Amino acid sequence: MEPVALPWGPPREERADAARNRAHLIGVAREMVAELGACNVTMDALAERAGLGKGTVFRRFGTRAGIFHAVLDEEEALFQHRVMTGPAPLGPGAPAAERLAAFGRARLEFLAAHLALARASLDVARPVPGQSPSLFHVRMLLAEACPDDALTGTLALQLVAALEGPVLLYLQRQDEGPLVVDDLITSWQVLVERLTAR
Amino acid sequence: MEPVALPWGPPREERADAARNRAHLIGVAREMVAELGACNVTMDALAERAGLGKGTVFRRFGTRAGIFHAVLDEEEALFQHRVMTGPAPLGPGAPAAERLAAFGRARLEFLAAHLALARASLDVARPVPGQSPSLFHVRMLLAEACPDDALTGTLALQLVAALEGPVLLYLQRQDEGPLVVDDLITSWQVLVERLTAR
Repeated sequence: MEPVALPWGPPREERADAARNRAHLIGVAREMVAELGACNVTMDALAERAGLGKGTVFRRFGTRAGIFHAVLDEEEALFQHRVMTGPAPLGPGAPAAERLAAFGRARLEFLAAHLALARASLDVARPVPGQSPSLFHVRMLLAEACPDDALTGTLALQLVAALEGPVLLYLQRQDEGPLVVDDLITSWQVLVERLTAR
Repeated sequence: MEPVALPWGPPREERADAARNRAHLIGVAREMVAELGACNVTMDALAERAGLGKGTVFRRFGTRAGIFHAVLDEEEALFQHRVMTGPAPLGPGAPAAERLAAFGRARLEFLAAHLALARASLDVARPVPGQSPSLFHVRMLLAEACPDDALTGTLALQLVAALEGPVLLYLQRQDEGPLVVDDLITSWQVLVERLTAR
């Protein structure tokens, strides 16, 4: 259904104000997560440092998890920006197989660095995190590295699951030891090298 | 903590009776799922066909999802049995790389065949389905197929995620088109062949 311009509702300035509050809150939350760790950021402290009422914070994000989800979305956007326009081999300019290996390393480091944030954003009732940006990128590089392969689509789906699945699984369990990211990076590189070798 | 034989509690016969009821209910539920599809099996119909009270059904399984979870556990056990003792190349007796390819095909077919059952068992608050039997098996075959690789553990973790992740992800989303299992089987075979090629 198309949105309809209603003759009532909040005036335009208030909506612009709401957007500013939201961006401000996300910025402050990012700072606090970096300083204190996600699990030590309370809604009270966030509202206080942002100079806003606690009611405003809840109105913008619904729950405590909601704010971490918004911060994670921001971090995702910055990551995608590095992939799309940053220096090679993560960014454009290197052979596809090299970019694929670099993407795996960067993605695993990103996921590991944001574990606490991702865990803090989990308990909100939301669908499974979308993997589309990773999927889109891996499929593109795979099509370039293996132009003769017919099943680039499903192979990309499996590679993204191989890359992100172990970390997502780890996230949803509480009883595990430490996540050995370096080993995952190395075995991802083995996987990609053998897959794209000609 | 060791279980302790308590001097009170239900008498032995009642516990044996409970175990029989449980096995009977799972058997009837399996039949009904095969006949009607998981989404058409109601607790009332299950209790009626099993000749038990609805209260007994809920006492044994907690929720509607609980009974489907128990049925899925049974199916999993039968699958593991085929892998461990069935005919080659899924069962023992073929080279490890061939067994790995056959395992992927059989596992994807198993997951696809039990999609409705898995979906019906999802809405109960449980941890992520354990992947340990698959992980154990893939790690063993990988160690045999690639004895020189150092990181068999993490590589196996990634391969199992590649195998089961796309189906799990599909399960948790409602908005997707059909799952193309044949394509997943073919690209799994490509992945395994290149990984184990020497």
